[in-house]
Amino acid sequence: MTVLVVGSVALDTVETPTGRVEEALGGAATYFSLAASLYTPVRLVAVVGTDFPRTGLELLRHHQIDTNGLEVRDGRTFRWVGRYGEDLNIAETLDTQLNVFADFDPKIPDDFRASPIVFLANIDPELQLRVLRSVDRPVLSAMDTMNFWISSKREAVTEVIRSVDIVLMNDAELRQYAQVRNLNEAARRVLDLGPRAVVVKKGDNGCALFARDRYFIAPAYPVEQVCDPTGAGDSFAGAFIGCLARTDSCSDAALRRAVLHGCVVASYTVESFSVDGVRNLNADLVERRVRELRSFMTIDDVPNDGRIL
Amino acid sequence: MTVLVVGSVALDTVETPTGRVEEALGGAATYFSLAASLYTPVRLVAVVGTDFPRTGLELLRHHQIDTNGLEVRDGRTFRWVGRYGEDLNIAETLDTQLNVFADFDPKIPDDFRASPIVFLANIDPELQLRVLRSVDRPVLSAMDTMNFWISSKREAVTEVIRSVDIVLMNDAELRQYAQVRNLNEAARRVLDLGPRAVVVKKGDNGCALFARDRYFIAPAYPVEQVCDPTGAGDSFAGAFIGCLARTDSCSDAALRRAVLHGCVVASYTVESFSVDGVRNLNADLVERRVRELRSFMTIDDVPNDGRIL
Repeated sequence: MTVLVVGSVALDTVETPTGRVEEALGGAATYFSLAASLYTPVRLVAVVGTDFPRTGLELLRHHQIDTNGLEVRDGRTFRWVGRYGEDLNIAETLDTQLNVFADFDPKIPDDFRASPIVFLANIDPELQLRVLRSVDRPVLSAMDTMNFWISSKREAVTEVIRSVDIVLMNDAELRQYAQVRNLNEAARRVLDLGPRAVVVKKGDNGCALFARDRYFIAPAYPVEQVCDPTGAGDSFAGAFIGCLARTDSCSDAALRRAVLHGCVVASYTVESFSVDGVRNLNADLVERRVRELRSFMTIDDVPNDGRIL
Repeated sequence: MTVLVVGSVALDTVETPTGRVEEALGGAATYFSLAASLYTPVRLVAVVGTDFPRTGLELLRHHQIDTNGLEVRDGRTFRWVGRYGEDLNIAETLDTQLNVFADFDPKIPDDFRASPIVFLANIDPELQLRVLRSVDRPVLSAMDTMNFWISSKREAVTEVIRSVDIVLMNDAELRQYAQVRNLNEAARRVLDLGPRAVVVKKGDNGCALFARDRYFIAPAYPVEQVCDPTGAGDSFAGAFIGCLARTDSCSDAALRRAVLHGCVVASYTVESFSVDGVRNLNADLVERRVRELRSFMTIDDVPNDGRIL
């Protein structure tokens, strides 16, 4: 099933302990699209400026991402400048230039309206609601958000949560939104608003999936060196939603498998700067790590159950 | 197989967002012993003052913990006063009175020397080494430590690590000791010193088990309300080591199952103040949560694989 994603496309300047990139391809919708395109056709709705590099467009199209909803407006593309220190879980924003993204008004092309799956990446929740109203009722809808919207437009965020099937947030955002520290309680409060599942991204602590009477938790795939965590959550979301779209199922097992795929694609993302980790992926590379990740969670059927001590 | 544990027995005064206890039974060796006694006979080596309550002794003996190595010295018992705020992962120490624990000199009763399994709870690493030298070579030895010793007696900690089969630490301690942020890399550095397994306790993010070519990760059992996190790591260790002792195996599968038992017993511990969670446990209660925890990690064989969405 085809996935429609609405969100940001940006140029990121990022510094981490292992290096630095300048004006590299970034933005939530970019990471999401590239990850989801491993599984299923993707339609992208976003805005860039006239300075957006042709190579960026070519990369998206090379991945069969439909860019008919990618508006090119007079002005500069959204730019983000950030730095990560030794604790790679914490991004320090040095500069944000919204540019043409400041008054992003998502225009859904007519042939995008019937998309069976809709993902609302982290944008103004009022825009998320407008997108939801301007598409035909999708089979599956999901959303992400961020601390800024939770504190500044809490009611609109609540409206979006009430309107979607799956909520994806990171653990800090979920705690902030639910106003409670215990993650399980926080997830229950969000489930009580209507969504059928809450997916909590916990960085290098993996991911938890909450549904009404189900709970699943997957570890992060243990990478040797995290190079740049930017886009980990968005590529998780892309793989997770893409995997569901390909399976054409939202059974408990399908959701659990989709979480593993999300963890694995995110692990590749953080091993390189910008989108380099996700753009070079293929199904074999993903499957290899999914098999490994399964073995890290296996208890009884441990292959070659030798004595360790 | 019988487990010998050497560590602290204390009286804790603890305040958390849900309540407060005064001079309640605590100490690493206490939590460890009670948890391990669910699985196997336990021998306790520790020191208390003459003010140690008779009810404390009776509780230990009621759990068939051999207290012949529990020295009662003139003076007051070790006291710890701590507080937890909304973030229950962070303990604020308000007062520490070492009292008779200040010059703890573990005396191993003759009939304790041949204990097949030895657990060195968090005490001065020089004492840990002395204990290791004064027992017959055990079948299995394991250790815990804390930030204080890692910074003040790093070389002695390294000596202990070189001398044991299994190292248990929490994630912050492992990072501090290995001087690297990436947990996997930190665990590799410790494995390179000689131990056959490193068990990393990650609080409400569960537990990771590293061996030379194996990796296993288990989520924390999701409790509805954490009442008092004190002793979670020590009761994890007690259940983990006790479970291995009962199984009489250190196969990969046995280690993985032991990790689950550790997570489950720790989950009961944090639901009540002091040792109340672990003292009232039995095999049925543990098995029930172990089964649940397994289901939270299961991917393919999801029982009743209905559609969630």
